[in-house]
Amino acid sequence: MYDSPIQDLITELSHLPGIGPKGAQRIAFFLLDAETEDVEALANAIIRAKQVVKFCQVCFNATEDDLCRICRDDRRDRTKICVVEESKDIMAIERTREFRGLYHVLGGAISPIDNRGPEDLHIREFVKRLEDESVTEIILATNPNTEGEVTATYLSRLLGHLGIQISRLASGLPVGGDLEYADEITLGRAFEGRRTVNDS
Amino acid sequence: MYDSPIQDLITELSHLPGIGPKGAQRIAFFLLDAETEDVEALANAIIRAKQVVKFCQVCFNATEDDLCRICRDDRRDRTKICVVEESKDIMAIERTREFRGLYHVLGGAISPIDNRGPEDLHIREFVKRLEDESVTEIILATNPNTEGEVTATYLSRLLGHLGIQISRLASGLPVGGDLEYADEITLGRAFEGRRTVNDS
Repeated sequence: MYDSPIQDLITELSHLPGIGPKGAQRIAFFLLDAETEDVEALANAIIRAKQVVKFCQVCFNATEDDLCRICRDDRRDRTKICVVEESKDIMAIERTREFRGLYHVLGGAISPIDNRGPEDLHIREFVKRLEDESVTEIILATNPNTEGEVTATYLSRLLGHLGIQISRLASGLPVGGDLEYADEITLGRAFEGRRTVNDS
Repeated sequence: MYDSPIQDLITELSHLPGIGPKGAQRIAFFLLDAETEDVEALANAIIRAKQVVKFCQVCFNATEDDLCRICRDDRRDRTKICVVEESKDIMAIERTREFRGLYHVLGGAISPIDNRGPEDLHIREFVKRLEDESVTEIILATNPNTEGEVTATYLSRLLGHLGIQISRLASGLPVGGDLEYADEITLGRAFEGRRTVNDS
């Protein structure tokens, strides 16, 4: 229906996650109306990020350098490693300011449906990282869904014999949420993980 | 927090309409994980569309050529012109297959808040188009919101003396909708525009 360069642009945009056909059309016309330099800035940012961003040789976080800025940072606690599925999970955890250790990015989670097994994740490299024996705690921060749980279970079994403390992020009610609207699995987990608040 | 090429990409993406900071981050990491050729295809589609797409000399629809494919099409009814705010509105109307005439894209709507008056729209060019006197009907298909209504009212007053039939798209209940969930203004319009269904 549209002339081909417009249709091509809409098609390409609709491949992006979270963007449907209407959203792609809206963005396409926004770009056609925008200043040429702004549009070029977007296209260049896409190409440049793809060209220069690689993965940290130690933890597989996205970075410009051989080591990511967290692995390079001497002030981080090197005895704790938090295992996440994706680089963007690191940012979410960093924003909490609760964790000052290192990370390890698996590059996904075990998912038989997507034909992704442990060998497709950066697990071998993680086991190798643990060989230097300075690590005393591993926090499994995979997503609280089926794939994430399966991956966490797999890792805790694989690493259980190393004498390292292994923990999983708490499941429970989201802060600021409404008990009434919590789904039964989350509410069940909140009961299961309840904490004593009196000292007696 | 992120290395600069990643942060630049997220910033650029978050300028797009309908994409917030989380969505931009998700798309950025999707692109970092994607095949280089797919990412280049996106960047090239953006640059190419911006380079080759211009606006139809007659109706201001987005096109690769001097005239858009609708203005070029000899089978279209040249006595009817449908006035829309944006090129993408043409596509929405074309999908209905209700209209076989020509279009005129205003390039927005009158909006004092955005400092956009009639002189910022392609109204002068529209008046000029009407000079050849073959047009017998004008359909004002601006958006059913304040700006669109103001623009339609302005146009109907401006063109009322030309002896051309001028109509506005019907307001009323969306098909498939629930009367219970209709807002009172829409429901009021539906009453106002009620149609007799018996022949007596």
